[in-house]
Amino acid sequence: MIAPDLVAQHQQELRRGTTSLACLALLTQQSDYGYNLLSRLADVGLATEANTLYPLLRRLDKQGLLTFEWDTSDTRPRKVYSTSSEGIELLTLLRSDWNRLTDALNHMETP
Amino acid sequence: MIAPDLVAQHQQELRRGTTSLACLALLTQQSDYGYNLLSRLADVGLATEANTLYPLLRRLDKQGLLTFEWDTSDTRPRKVYSTSSEGIELLTLLRSDWNRLTDALNHMETP
Repeated sequence: MIAPDLVAQHQQELRRGTTSLACLALLTQQSDYGYNLLSRLADVGLATEANTLYPLLRRLDKQGLLTFEWDTSDTRPRKVYSTSSEGIELLTLLRSDWNRLTDALNHMETP
Repeated sequence: MIAPDLVAQHQQELRRGTTSLACLALLTQQSDYGYNLLSRLADVGLATEANTLYPLLRRLDKQGLLTFEWDTSDTRPRKVYSTSSEGIELLTLLRSDWNRLTDALNHMETP
């Protein structure tokens, strides 16, 4: 029986990278607050911790892959993120990488 | 136009984790030397640097996910790796994660 923490560690490595891809895809579909994005990620089976997502969004914004506007309609101003044109460009490239990796893994027959 | 090094960085994050999965799958199919595994990874479109692969194999061995035997038929003894039963167990779990992630990404429509 394999140790659960070893499984978790490998699953996490596999997940890293995927979360960026998912954020770029979801914020292309519809602009959103970080807080809402947490539920949308969970809805598609990619539940992510707030303290993982918020730094990631700031990093993607800093890299020019996301843009944001301030929503000041509430008591506290909130950032509304959307995927930039460069983000959409990266998304297309990463999706094609993902498909290539999926093909490669599917071609390795295992018992 | 998106910066090539930014693309490379995100591609690398997406690739990390996948290489472990691929090694476990390939070494389930057939035991092998690290050196041969480099060509087999390249053959399936997952070209990996030797200085990435060798530490990874040692790590997977240390985690009990691979086993090895010494091949002493050549002038220098060489390790022949195969996937352990725990490695096969992890492989099954990671494959099912991969499929779940693929489904999630496919369900995010983008322009």
